[in-house]
Amino acid sequence: MPDTDRRTLMRTVAASSLATAIPGGVFAQSTPQQVPAPAAPAPAHVTRILADYVVKAAPEDLPANVRKEGARTLLNWVGVAIGGSHHQTVDIAVAALAPFSGPQKASLLGRTERFDPMNAAFINGVASHIFDYDDTHLKTIIHPAGPVASAILALAELQPVSGKDFLNALILGVETECRIGNAVYPNHYDVGWHITGTAGVFGSAAAAGKLLGLNSQQMVWALGLAASQPVGLRESFGSMNKSFNPGRAASNGLFAALLAQKNYTSSDGMIEAKRGWANTISTKQDYKEIIDGLGQRYEAALNTYKPFACGIVMHPAIDAAIQLRNENKLGADQIERIDLKVHPLVLELTGKKTPQEGLEGKFSIYHAVAVALVEGAGGEKQFSDHAVRDPVIVGLRGKVMPVVTTGIKPEQVDLTIVTKDGRSLHKYIEHAIGSLEMPMSDQALEAKFSDLAEGILPRARIREVMDLCWNVEILASAAEIARAGASS
Amino acid sequence: MPDTDRRTLMRTVAASSLATAIPGGVFAQSTPQQVPAPAAPAPAHVTRILADYVVKAAPEDLPANVRKEGARTLLNWVGVAIGGSHHQTVDIAVAALAPFSGPQKASLLGRTERFDPMNAAFINGVASHIFDYDDTHLKTIIHPAGPVASAILALAELQPVSGKDFLNALILGVETECRIGNAVYPNHYDVGWHITGTAGVFGSAAAAGKLLGLNSQQMVWALGLAASQPVGLRESFGSMNKSFNPGRAASNGLFAALLAQKNYTSSDGMIEAKRGWANTISTKQDYKEIIDGLGQRYEAALNTYKPFACGIVMHPAIDAAIQLRNENKLGADQIERIDLKVHPLVLELTGKKTPQEGLEGKFSIYHAVAVALVEGAGGEKQFSDHAVRDPVIVGLRGKVMPVVTTGIKPEQVDLTIVTKDGRSLHKYIEHAIGSLEMPMSDQALEAKFSDLAEGILPRARIREVMDLCWNVEILASAAEIARAGASS
Repeated sequence: MPDTDRRTLMRTVAASSLATAIPGGVFAQSTPQQVPAPAAPAPAHVTRILADYVVKAAPEDLPANVRKEGARTLLNWVGVAIGGSHHQTVDIAVAALAPFSGPQKASLLGRTERFDPMNAAFINGVASHIFDYDDTHLKTIIHPAGPVASAILALAELQPVSGKDFLNALILGVETECRIGNAVYPNHYDVGWHITGTAGVFGSAAAAGKLLGLNSQQMVWALGLAASQPVGLRESFGSMNKSFNPGRAASNGLFAALLAQKNYTSSDGMIEAKRGWANTISTKQDYKEIIDGLGQRYEAALNTYKPFACGIVMHPAIDAAIQLRNENKLGADQIERIDLKVHPLVLELTGKKTPQEGLEGKFSIYHAVAVALVEGAGGEKQFSDHAVRDPVIVGLRGKVMPVVTTGIKPEQVDLTIVTKDGRSLHKYIEHAIGSLEMPMSDQALEAKFSDLAEGILPRARIREVMDLCWNVEILASAAEIARAGASS
Repeated sequence: MPDTDRRTLMRTVAASSLATAIPGGVFAQSTPQQVPAPAAPAPAHVTRILADYVVKAAPEDLPANVRKEGARTLLNWVGVAIGGSHHQTVDIAVAALAPFSGPQKASLLGRTERFDPMNAAFINGVASHIFDYDDTHLKTIIHPAGPVASAILALAELQPVSGKDFLNALILGVETECRIGNAVYPNHYDVGWHITGTAGVFGSAAAAGKLLGLNSQQMVWALGLAASQPVGLRESFGSMNKSFNPGRAASNGLFAALLAQKNYTSSDGMIEAKRGWANTISTKQDYKEIIDGLGQRYEAALNTYKPFACGIVMHPAIDAAIQLRNENKLGADQIERIDLKVHPLVLELTGKKTPQEGLEGKFSIYHAVAVALVEGAGGEKQFSDHAVRDPVIVGLRGKVMPVVTTGIKPEQVDLTIVTKDGRSLHKYIEHAIGSLEMPMSDQALEAKFSDLAEGILPRARIREVMDLCWNVEILASAAEIARAGASS
């Protein structure tokens, strides 16, 4: 066929509505120009196997360690959502969406306004990612809780949901998004997608669908409608659009599940089909990651939480500084100099010597170490405008001397404090606190929560909300968490 | 750096919140594995140039032919939305979303329910694509009106919008989505995206943003938030998920514009940045298609409308059959046989000899020609269950003899009817009715509209709605169209 003929054909046929009803459409004939054929054919029924699992999985099936990690995931998420709830980004979202809210059945964490469940899911999801201080599934860099917990907390105020079912749905949602993320990471992320929003929408749909009692076919459709609504590009990082992504993933997944509940249909193989999600959105498709060992190995057990409100490249140094400070009861005035042996990335990414604003402090290893030594912490307050301008901290940061050193890995640091009285105090960190190897303790998670929620909720209420999260499994209604977490 | 080290680094750094604030993030260093470098660097400020144009373009700037095509686009869209408004798909969407609707300010075409503007935009967008009978921008196969008109018709009931401004916004929205579609078509479509949903969300955001009076920076953000919400995969074709896509593109774009109006920020270069929309979602990026000749050449003037409710591969044959029938006042009983010389694709795609249901009739050249000869039409009714079971049509379809013929292009047909009294009636079609070369007349568009709306709206109301569409430019309020188009 001559080329002009072929072009005409493409143009003409392309417009055909025939594509509507032939599986794969008119275009099943044309070769995708972008996606190399997968090494092996996709296993059949990936979407259906996953849907079946989510539909059937009962709370009793979950191992104790997974349930515990689920409660930690929940507590950490509620804390960061409350902490972010009065950021300008959330104020804007609330102002923009209030005129369009449906029946105001769902709470906003940390705030007094109420919204319909879809808008509430969006806003809570935004709030929880504002400080980039939420949970991380390290294998995929998905922040799992935002898309999932935001959707089902809103649902729990719409219909009766026991705490046990809520925790089960949360874990199944996290499992769904992280497994789908594993299947396409890193290629999918490298090319530019914000994987928390693109995989997260599946997590939201699965968890919401679970609580809505979808049957297997409906769950397949919910996942299909979720696949049709990926959210977020990495180009938006640095703007409010970044926290938009988990929020919109939450509301999109809920939207998908609500439609599927009424039998709004989709394709049966939206994840694995030739022109389905994984082939369209990634050059890597490892479907075994999605369907192997369902109910046996749990990605949801691999969740981690940040102890410090900044990029984890600085976490080892902050960890070391706080440990030395506490062990030696050091004051700023006792310190002569701080020597750090660091990986090159530390200076590359966080080399700002004289930050002027709180946000800049997040990119200054000098400030991070100094404030950690003065205040014994690395929370959101330690990266405020006030903190980076504090004369004591400013004075101390001039004494921080990082040196790029061969053999130091990014997750390591070698820190030595020389005191004015001539002592040399040394700390080597192999894995910083918050890593999989050195997880934050429950107590540390509580301290983080309290720090974030202080000034937003009364102290007694903060205690109450944390207790509700720890005891989620025995709550008669998961809505208690939403109500206690909202400002009254 | 050894590989294990690099992997650790990737994993560790990947989780870093530093990505939040460094443009391009931590990952600016890694090379995308999927997208070959564009042949030429992207022009700077593509998103901003487009946004500036949309913000500044006044109704007075539009040439008469573009305004006229805009009115035709509107009329065709209102007709197909009314026609699809009582399909099961729409009933399901209405049932699923009614409990979540905000203030019921916006009408559904062809129905009595009212919804908040975002849900109304979604549902009208779904309805208008149900029959795959809406408009087509042939260069990209985008169905332009669905995402755009659905969003701004809802807005027109929320705030005062003159008909002149409405038409301007409609055209600017269509222009935006088709230009962005041109930039990535065909690669983007080939890989699996449903381009009506992925490019359409930009059209919706631009048009809604125009009516909301966004300034240039806000319009940049609206386009950025739109870029974050592409909708739809081709794998869903054949399910309700297909019409979901233009509907969700409409509501997503409106959502983006409403947030941007309150200064919810995004990146400034979401379309063209290294990890922006075009590089992430396509291997082809022709930015000149987006920014060259803005206000001079109009993609919106290249819109086309289907005269027949089936894939356009059958349109030449239906066109020929209707012409011969009318010219010769042929009855089915006079016909001995019908010989068709067709392109191979016709039999490949529409070779069903004995369709049993209406939808199957859309894949039967035999039925299509027979029903066209009997009824002189190829509308939705001609592809009903009733039509494919009609004994006269069933009898005649057995006499349709298509032969694949070298030299016949897909947009052509050579049709000869042999009558029982020995005549041989011949018609060759170079370009079927509905193509750019042989556009549907205004009268034919009205006939299509009436056919679709009959039984849903009273006849006088049908006339009224069509007149409102033709006269959109002089309407004091575009909301009149929404109110007249709804069932009362």
